[in-house]
Amino acid sequence: MNEDIINIDKILAKHRNERLFEGGFGFEKENVRVNPKGELAQTPHPAVFGNKRKHPYITTDFSESQIEIITPVRHSVDEALGFLETLHDEVSLHLKDEFLWPQSTPPILPDSDDDIPIAKFDEKGADMEEYRSYLAENYGRKKQLLSGVHFNVSFDEQVLKRMFNSENNLEFTYIQFREQVYLKTLRNFKRYRWFLIALLGNSPVVHKSYVKECVDLLPKLKDDTFHLMNAGSMRNSMCGYRNKENLCLNYDSLNGYHQSIDKAIKEGLISQAKENYASIRIKSIDGDKAISHLEVRLLDLNPFVKTGVDIHHSRIIHQFLVFCLLKQESNAFDIRAQRRAFANHERAASFILDENATIIADEGNEVSMQLAISQLCAEMELATNDILNEAYKGSFRELCNLIDKPERRPARRMLNELKHQDFINWNLSKAKEYLNLSGQKTYNFFGLEDMELSTQLLMRNAVLRGINVNIMDRSENFIRLSSEGKTEYVMQATRTSLDNYASVLLMENKVMTKKVLQSAEINTPQGQEFSNDEIARKSFDFYCNQAVVIKPKSTNFGLGISILKNNADKEMYHRAIAMAFEHDNTILVEKFISGKEYRMFIINDELVGILHRVPANVKGDGQSSIAQLIDEKNKNPMRGKGYKTPLEKISKGEAESMFLETQKLRFDSIPANGETIYLRENSNISTGGDSIDYTDDVHSSYKQLAVNAAKALDVKVTGLDMMINDITQPASKDNYSIIEMNFNPAIHIHCHPFVGRNRQLNVKMLDALGF
Amino acid sequence: MNEDIINIDKILAKHRNERLFEGGFGFEKENVRVNPKGELAQTPHPAVFGNKRKHPYITTDFSESQIEIITPVRHSVDEALGFLETLHDEVSLHLKDEFLWPQSTPPILPDSDDDIPIAKFDEKGADMEEYRSYLAENYGRKKQLLSGVHFNVSFDEQVLKRMFNSENNLEFTYIQFREQVYLKTLRNFKRYRWFLIALLGNSPVVHKSYVKECVDLLPKLKDDTFHLMNAGSMRNSMCGYRNKENLCLNYDSLNGYHQSIDKAIKEGLISQAKENYASIRIKSIDGDKAISHLEVRLLDLNPFVKTGVDIHHSRIIHQFLVFCLLKQESNAFDIRAQRRAFANHERAASFILDENATIIADEGNEVSMQLAISQLCAEMELATNDILNEAYKGSFRELCNLIDKPERRPARRMLNELKHQDFINWNLSKAKEYLNLSGQKTYNFFGLEDMELSTQLLMRNAVLRGINVNIMDRSENFIRLSSEGKTEYVMQATRTSLDNYASVLLMENKVMTKKVLQSAEINTPQGQEFSNDEIARKSFDFYCNQAVVIKPKSTNFGLGISILKNNADKEMYHRAIAMAFEHDNTILVEKFISGKEYRMFIINDELVGILHRVPANVKGDGQSSIAQLIDEKNKNPMRGKGYKTPLEKISKGEAESMFLETQKLRFDSIPANGETIYLRENSNISTGGDSIDYTDDVHSSYKQLAVNAAKALDVKVTGLDMMINDITQPASKDNYSIIEMNFNPAIHIHCHPFVGRNRQLNVKMLDALGF
Repeated sequence: MNEDIINIDKILAKHRNERLFEGGFGFEKENVRVNPKGELAQTPHPAVFGNKRKHPYITTDFSESQIEIITPVRHSVDEALGFLETLHDEVSLHLKDEFLWPQSTPPILPDSDDDIPIAKFDEKGADMEEYRSYLAENYGRKKQLLSGVHFNVSFDEQVLKRMFNSENNLEFTYIQFREQVYLKTLRNFKRYRWFLIALLGNSPVVHKSYVKECVDLLPKLKDDTFHLMNAGSMRNSMCGYRNKENLCLNYDSLNGYHQSIDKAIKEGLISQAKENYASIRIKSIDGDKAISHLEVRLLDLNPFVKTGVDIHHSRIIHQFLVFCLLKQESNAFDIRAQRRAFANHERAASFILDENATIIADEGNEVSMQLAISQLCAEMELATNDILNEAYKGSFRELCNLIDKPERRPARRMLNELKHQDFINWNLSKAKEYLNLSGQKTYNFFGLEDMELSTQLLMRNAVLRGINVNIMDRSENFIRLSSEGKTEYVMQATRTSLDNYASVLLMENKVMTKKVLQSAEINTPQGQEFSNDEIARKSFDFYCNQAVVIKPKSTNFGLGISILKNNADKEMYHRAIAMAFEHDNTILVEKFISGKEYRMFIINDELVGILHRVPANVKGDGQSSIAQLIDEKNKNPMRGKGYKTPLEKISKGEAESMFLETQKLRFDSIPANGETIYLRENSNISTGGDSIDYTDDVHSSYKQLAVNAAKALDVKVTGLDMMINDITQPASKDNYSIIEMNFNPAIHIHCHPFVGRNRQLNVKMLDALGF
Repeated sequence: MNEDIINIDKILAKHRNERLFEGGFGFEKENVRVNPKGELAQTPHPAVFGNKRKHPYITTDFSESQIEIITPVRHSVDEALGFLETLHDEVSLHLKDEFLWPQSTPPILPDSDDDIPIAKFDEKGADMEEYRSYLAENYGRKKQLLSGVHFNVSFDEQVLKRMFNSENNLEFTYIQFREQVYLKTLRNFKRYRWFLIALLGNSPVVHKSYVKECVDLLPKLKDDTFHLMNAGSMRNSMCGYRNKENLCLNYDSLNGYHQSIDKAIKEGLISQAKENYASIRIKSIDGDKAISHLEVRLLDLNPFVKTGVDIHHSRIIHQFLVFCLLKQESNAFDIRAQRRAFANHERAASFILDENATIIADEGNEVSMQLAISQLCAEMELATNDILNEAYKGSFRELCNLIDKPERRPARRMLNELKHQDFINWNLSKAKEYLNLSGQKTYNFFGLEDMELSTQLLMRNAVLRGINVNIMDRSENFIRLSSEGKTEYVMQATRTSLDNYASVLLMENKVMTKKVLQSAEINTPQGQEFSNDEIARKSFDFYCNQAVVIKPKSTNFGLGISILKNNADKEMYHRAIAMAFEHDNTILVEKFISGKEYRMFIINDELVGILHRVPANVKGDGQSSIAQLIDEKNKNPMRGKGYKTPLEKISKGEAESMFLETQKLRFDSIPANGETIYLRENSNISTGGDSIDYTDDVHSSYKQLAVNAAKALDVKVTGLDMMINDITQPASKDNYSIIEMNFNPAIHIHCHPFVGRNRQLNVKMLDALGF
């Protein structure tokens, strides 16, 4: 063991627990763009992704046609992968007649290197273009088109600190401790990386248009596909891109590492530190002063999943890293050990399909690769499985499957499938399937599905635009958006700096809203405010025999509201009053306005969406029972449970049953063809109601009134509820009434209505915020 | 009965109830300004009251030295009078070496009329000056200096409407009905106004410098005071100002009234409608189309009360008006009847002190005035007393006193007192006493004492400045301020349009506040956020043996907060966690910062006040017991109960008793001289704590930090709580911490601290709002 190395094993052994799995996680993933023929796209990086030099999430790698998707640091592997999936979907959906090539090895490449476009940058990116020209010259453009996944992992700083702090009389500092945590992990990872390459390797073939020197060496698999007989990962093999000479560096201390890198540069082996094409790299966010995380670079794109990154494989790598941290080091990681690791890496990439393949064990002897895999896996299980959570346990079972059933390893699966379809078409059909999948749940921001749909939608559009999204308070849906020096804090997608506090307070208070609207000569429901229960009850005489609404003064969720259509029963009136008083000290009794209620969404004095909600309903076909019609309607993937989707499934519960009874119907009744049956009186989306877009159907006079109302309260973002008698007739003195103006209206209902088109309120909100 | 008159008596009789007393009420009151010698002030209208033409509440009447105070319409007599009192106090306190003359008849006037300054207006007020010149010429300037009170009263529109609506088959419209309601009231008022003049008349004498023709006619009372032998109200007498000829007008219909006014103008009796110096006038707010209210003009200033307007007298007049509405009319109100009313008016004003005075009864016969008073009072009692509320019943008892005990009538009281002091000095001493009183409760807006002190303070300064104050939602302390086309809605004095919604949400959420401050490199308490009870409990090991604060994430009232000074007891830690979780789903555990807490108030990036709160305490004198010291300290009028005053009385309850016990003290212990004894651990003002102004004492570096914090959140109005180790030392990395930023901080504590000066935050808030 080198004397630079501090032995941290005792501390680790003492504090080995599930919190070692906490940390920061991020992905960087490349895909080349292809045209529908499977040829490398010759088009520029799509303008919709903005300036590739500034965009934090979507840029290009080596080639103009090679999109790189980068996630920010997230607090779990799953969440980071969700972020990646969202970016992947947005990118895929914004390509025009092109696809993301789902494979690490390139598609059909032009004959000449010169026809592979190097990424173009704006003036300030001159050095980035220069570096790419250097790479093109030194490695060839075709090799640079190999695409893969980089997985960034850090350990939780608090966990490390507490581990360190709980020890007394240590002879080293926390900074030194942390450095060794990362370096030890790295050293072991390098020693045993062949294990991951062997099992997860995922690029067994290359197309004939790939680098000639390489293709010429390889036997033909079939048609235009070439394959190194027993290779699982061409990308990690000698045919992949790697440094001209394997770099042996000093991994004992950060200082030593930097010195060895400098030496390699001086010796002309590499031009700069980032040219070190290692399978794992030390990363720093403070200008090389300390290690902030590790970058695992050996993962191929996985063509069997949409994003190219399998969740199980990602968790397995993470578990492997923790294992590397915990596992006692067998020897010094000197040049000999590093060379052995390189050799094993090469064997795992190129010979894994050979059942007789061997690797060189730590002791220097040759061992069956299959046996070594099983042994290492058993060691990993012993070291980490008692501190795995359930999800990770599932992924570990997947790892065992890969070991026990070699045919399940991705490289073998691909080779099997390529028996029936050629390489280009197989990948193209995958690409098309994934594009279709990307269009399915465009209301979700994956990994953050617990947040409100409105916020998920806003974040989706933000990341597409290159706005930095920072989730400040997840449960409150409070995020920070920042871009080029501009920062905006947004809560629940629509509570922003656009509105002033007084205007929000006016909206929050129904009496205030009414007073201000009335003074602007805009109709609001006529009625009275009561703070005294007795006086409120006495008002029955005044309001009897007319339709009235009784509601608490300040509430935003429809609680405590009663509608008495023909207020004739004094006792019922009194009960409604009591109910309203349960929610506020002041209640309102208002004349009920007939007509339908429309939600009008206004941003910066512009009406951007109108929605009408219809109570849960089914339409008869003359054959199916109501229950069957409900089941059928609920199959729509837009319908879910618990507000995770734009619409909710219709229940077959007591409330629905009772409402059917009032119509003399039951769940097994069979409605006539075309007959609409309502399951609920209330039209809430949350109880299965339908949302129907009316933005283009409502007479413009109502839209103007809504905008005037927003102006009267000096409100910039609001969802205004208006009762309208007949949307085709112009507004008059008594055919409409504004019921409420909401200060935190949902936007997703306007983006994903049951009927009608996406009104892009997420886009409009971000426009309004000045991004 | 004239045929124009619709008989509304049946409807009235049927719906006679307490709601007849509902309506709108307002006062207009004049006082001349005098110098300390009791001479009419020769100074201009004070600039602090702004442009007298535009100011809605404070202007001048005829003379530059005659301040007129006008209240807006309020919903009760008491509230209108409170508004008047507030205006009166603000005006009094903003005069420099001058006083408001508390008397209807003028103070020492210059010999020559020309030395009485007519009110000056800006260019747009030329017509107002012109009219005053006309009055000066036609009535003489001295008479115009007679000052009095106008009392505006309307009936509640809803009450009248419901009265009308509940009747079927009426042969007249609601507009006609309402017109008769007012005209009948007015006719009866005119018939019996002598009753009010006789009882409430309050200007029995004039100074010798008053109008020469008048003084020459009068016998001398004493020294320089003259008095018409039996007069109670010189202002209402022939010596007061009145039209050259008594105007007999048509009061049967509004139309007829307008015609008769036009006739009087044509005949040169008056120059315009407002020159009709009637004891009650029809008023209109819609350009004479309909009667909106009645203006009672016969009330003299009452020198026995600070504002010049007695609450009982005001309620009595109101009750009298309702009585006039209900009382059946005895005859047509023709010229004969009107002349008789004039005659009775004259007699009540000039002969009330004569026990043998008579009035002319409706039937034309002479009746003893005293007897007629008793009869009318009995009739009034019968007609209205069963529908009076308790306050009005009290005022009615006061009326009975005035009738039964003539010496209690204000005119007699004044004459009695003038036996011992001359007229000028008597009034001056009253004026000085009232000025002193005006300075006593400058934190109150009278009539609105149920509102928050912060809002009361803001409104006080607003009315002084001439900003229209509209109370939109009283219980929520939500007001509208408007002035010259500018409108601002303000809730709780500090929740305004100055702040944007996102910034408020950042303040509302402690975690967000901390995150934003931390990224601005401003100290906040170190700690962690927990959403899971179990994980929070486990954190004991990490935080044990250090001072910690445990609190719910979002609360603004100090609920659920525990401070564990030496966190050594795990169970106590768990209890504190459970308590915090009772108030929020997420809690914070933070390291406790030593030092003292300072509330720093920031408006528009300027630090405008710093306050430190000290727990309830008393200082020993070596003789008194703690209980006695508390009683003594509680005598301070700034201390009240229920947040109606800037400070609260210290309780002698169980909490205080227990806290004394921990110090081995009891309420009957006698602390040493100068020893401070604390009664509470918490420093809340609400539990008797002291507020101490430190604005000028805290090192400027902390002020800069507070301003920087506000800037970091883009907050314009905030009350920031900072822990500071030593306010004399400059801020460093670890000697301060910002605990919280409040989005609705109280301003009154900075205006009326226990120790320190008024930081005028109400003034500064209005400045910031752009008024």
